[in-house]
Amino acid sequence: MDMPHTVDVMTATIPETHRLTGQMIIAGTPVRGTGTQIHAFDPAAGAALDPPYHHGDAGNVDAACAAAADAFGTYRATTSDQRARFLEAIAGQIEAISEPLIARAVAETGLPQARITGEVGRTTGQLRLFAEVLREGSYQGARIDTALPDRSPLPRPDLRQRFIGLGPVAVFGASNFPLAFSVAGGDTASALAAGCPVVVKAHDAHPGTSELVGRAVTAAVAESGMPAGTFSLLFGSGAGLGIALVTDPRIKAVGFTGSRSGGTALVAAAAARPEPIPVYAEMSSINPVFVLDGALAGRGNELGRAFVASLTMGSGQFCTNPGLVIAVDGPGLDAFVAAAREALAQAPATPMLTPAIARSYAEGVTALSGAAELVGRGQDASNECGCHAALFTTDAESFLNSEALQAEVFGSSSLIVRCADAAEMHAVADGIEGQLTATVHADDSDLDAAAELLPRLELKAGRILFGGWPTGVEVSHAMVHGGPFPATSDSRSTSVGSRAIERFLRPVCYQNVPKSLLPSAIADGNPDHLWRRIDGRLSQD
Amino acid sequence: MDMPHTVDVMTATIPETHRLTGQMIIAGTPVRGTGTQIHAFDPAAGAALDPPYHHGDAGNVDAACAAAADAFGTYRATTSDQRARFLEAIAGQIEAISEPLIARAVAETGLPQARITGEVGRTTGQLRLFAEVLREGSYQGARIDTALPDRSPLPRPDLRQRFIGLGPVAVFGASNFPLAFSVAGGDTASALAAGCPVVVKAHDAHPGTSELVGRAVTAAVAESGMPAGTFSLLFGSGAGLGIALVTDPRIKAVGFTGSRSGGTALVAAAAARPEPIPVYAEMSSINPVFVLDGALAGRGNELGRAFVASLTMGSGQFCTNPGLVIAVDGPGLDAFVAAAREALAQAPATPMLTPAIARSYAEGVTALSGAAELVGRGQDASNECGCHAALFTTDAESFLNSEALQAEVFGSSSLIVRCADAAEMHAVADGIEGQLTATVHADDSDLDAAAELLPRLELKAGRILFGGWPTGVEVSHAMVHGGPFPATSDSRSTSVGSRAIERFLRPVCYQNVPKSLLPSAIADGNPDHLWRRIDGRLSQD
Repeated sequence: MDMPHTVDVMTATIPETHRLTGQMIIAGTPVRGTGTQIHAFDPAAGAALDPPYHHGDAGNVDAACAAAADAFGTYRATTSDQRARFLEAIAGQIEAISEPLIARAVAETGLPQARITGEVGRTTGQLRLFAEVLREGSYQGARIDTALPDRSPLPRPDLRQRFIGLGPVAVFGASNFPLAFSVAGGDTASALAAGCPVVVKAHDAHPGTSELVGRAVTAAVAESGMPAGTFSLLFGSGAGLGIALVTDPRIKAVGFTGSRSGGTALVAAAAARPEPIPVYAEMSSINPVFVLDGALAGRGNELGRAFVASLTMGSGQFCTNPGLVIAVDGPGLDAFVAAAREALAQAPATPMLTPAIARSYAEGVTALSGAAELVGRGQDASNECGCHAALFTTDAESFLNSEALQAEVFGSSSLIVRCADAAEMHAVADGIEGQLTATVHADDSDLDAAAELLPRLELKAGRILFGGWPTGVEVSHAMVHGGPFPATSDSRSTSVGSRAIERFLRPVCYQNVPKSLLPSAIADGNPDHLWRRIDGRLSQD
Repeated sequence: MDMPHTVDVMTATIPETHRLTGQMIIAGTPVRGTGTQIHAFDPAAGAALDPPYHHGDAGNVDAACAAAADAFGTYRATTSDQRARFLEAIAGQIEAISEPLIARAVAETGLPQARITGEVGRTTGQLRLFAEVLREGSYQGARIDTALPDRSPLPRPDLRQRFIGLGPVAVFGASNFPLAFSVAGGDTASALAAGCPVVVKAHDAHPGTSELVGRAVTAAVAESGMPAGTFSLLFGSGAGLGIALVTDPRIKAVGFTGSRSGGTALVAAAAARPEPIPVYAEMSSINPVFVLDGALAGRGNELGRAFVASLTMGSGQFCTNPGLVIAVDGPGLDAFVAAAREALAQAPATPMLTPAIARSYAEGVTALSGAAELVGRGQDASNECGCHAALFTTDAESFLNSEALQAEVFGSSSLIVRCADAAEMHAVADGIEGQLTATVHADDSDLDAAAELLPRLELKAGRILFGGWPTGVEVSHAMVHGGPFPATSDSRSTSVGSRAIERFLRPVCYQNVPKSLLPSAIADGNPDHLWRRIDGRLSQD
């Protein structure tokens, strides 16, 4: 990356205690990397940001993993309530630095201050959601099958089951959510909740934000009396330090949000280990939007405008950006397209996260230009990071026969697939790869058509929306941010919402274990007041 | 395999309708393979059994997978109660042929009739357990987060979540449980319960048993009105037909019980697919038994005898066979060893499942003989399949420095590790690979020592037993038959017990989906009377 000059935006606004140091954190200790030097980059100003950071090396990975493995025994033995208070302490530490944190994250990402402010709230909200999950306690999956000493021909032993943490977890920060999917984001919060120490590899796009949050987590570790190795923060490349981290024998699971190539490389590295481990990689999704005939006829204009608002939000840098619209050709779709084109023409060229992402985006748009018809573009930008939004159209047959048209273009780019009829729309639904989301716009007259579409979409997506747009992911109990490959590497899981904790747990059965040695979750008398499955029936007794 | 002569044991005992045909079953239709011819082998009689079977080919895999994919939409749309009745129908069909089935399975395996009779009961019991799981309904993981239309700054949509089946599942029958882990065993029962069609690759060791059970399942498919592609049964080699099955794009998950080499080959093949899929491979475990000082001092003799009974049961052909005993050296351990040696000397050379397994066993024992000290052996056999049980001893340091001493020997072979003290015992516990089970024998005086051991064992095993022996796996709600690699390829799961259904499910979120289109599990008014998580709280309302 060419660095014309650097601006120390932090000097003026940050108190001494929050001055960035450019260091990693290994088990509570700041460590300066000795590898490649990187700078954050302000994509709005087009300027590199101080201080410099340096990538770590294999020795740093070894030290962080050794500390995590060492901490695991103590950390996993903490009570649910102790870990809940720890997560709340992290949230509190983040809130205590929200002003400089927001300023730095805005500078590093070019995202609007309101968006970053909201993301801080989402990040602390996630931490507090997992604190609730811990206190509620069902995550432990407590089950008891009572002994049947008189059963014939063989007695049944006393059998009890609970979940325990897998072990140290490697978390890879995402470029596009510098807080909510980064150092103390959903992967970290859910792994810590599960009783697993975390080693984060920060994303190079926001090292200052990562350092600030890493120090907040470190402060919470100390404040809560957790072992220092519970958390470490490393900088490095995915192909170098990232692979070293995933292949370290002490790491037992991986959380990743990023590109398909990056995710599949980590999945392959984890599968090739002497002891393979699970990788939860959230990778690639074009988030199809099906607009049915009645909705199109009644609200084509309105939907076209709303679509562009979703498409261009945050320069389209969402995993759930609507990159595909499928509808049956006709005047309704014409109105949708015309309204979208008009709205798009007004869309300013907001900055993308990094020059590299902007270049990738431009290449993706160029590739689509050769394979589909251009419908319209957003406003052009002189800024090298500006996102020059693009909208294309094609027919169903071309779409189904082209891998290029199905590839994700990260940024504000979308493709409208004109279908001849409902059967072609079904063929497109059946022909796409796995997705994070599938959206349906339907009016009352469309319910029969929607009923035919729904089972097809269930097989393709982790979340199905009626109305609205896929951008915007609620953090709650029923959310699924996941889906069949390549949306994720493991469709059995979600990276958002309370079920995310399940990714880092495994069941253990205790047979005839003496009462005095039983963990409280499965002890007699239910001292933790959990919902437990007793002889197959849920009970709080 | 050299076939001196063949015996048609079935002609005399089986009615015409149950006469074996030597055919595979693809979506309800008998199909004769055109590949390698195989015969079952009676290891007790030392004779091949008619009829001949033939391996299938890639075309058979394609046909079975196409039928399974075709059936999936209809099959997964059945209600929980319909699938429960279908599983009960399979159990009924198996019971209807129990007499010829038991006769054939005894002939094909050399296992005692009482054991096979028990296994029929276990198999039908598993099917009925999953019928219960279906009717209870919690497997659907129903969750509802109610809409908050007035929330600021953004309203919360109506969010609902349920689990659906992954798609067609490939199941590999195990050699050592011709019924309970084979054609209609735990993997098949749990996958069918989850709404997934199943394609079974039968184990070559018991083709006749497989055909009989396959026909029972096929009859139940027809009787229950399920689509024919819900079930297919193929014969073939693991490296040929097995890999073709696992890499077929329509297969979405795999269940396997067998060797470490076989399991890791399937895991690697599944990971290398364009769309990787989960493989639940239950592979290798030596099932350490820790005998603590008090137990040893008080009951060394008795424990030594009981250990040998567990070691030699079924010629040691259990995944949970106690292949490792760890204790602190001293007079108690001497008494244990002396009693074990004496009991072993009386142990008859019962037949192993196949000549190949018997040869592997003999090679494993020879390898151990070079690396550890022989303590004693069972009775020798003239029969080529006879299991000449073996018991070895070594010290902790030698054990920890030798991969050979940690390798599973399938059959009645075990290794006693003499430790200098509790610290060495802990080092052995920390140094072993992942296990299905870990057993502790402790008296009241051992509780402190047991408390130090327990957290170490939690990290190594799926099931921890106090007292008793690991052979014998209860099929219930709290059971875990799983564990860290290489015990299984996925420690987050169990292949025995009601949680096994979770392996074949994934969550889907429904956002603002019209009431009339919602699946009943997450519909308003709770028509299925399920336990559901409403805004984070369990409720049956």
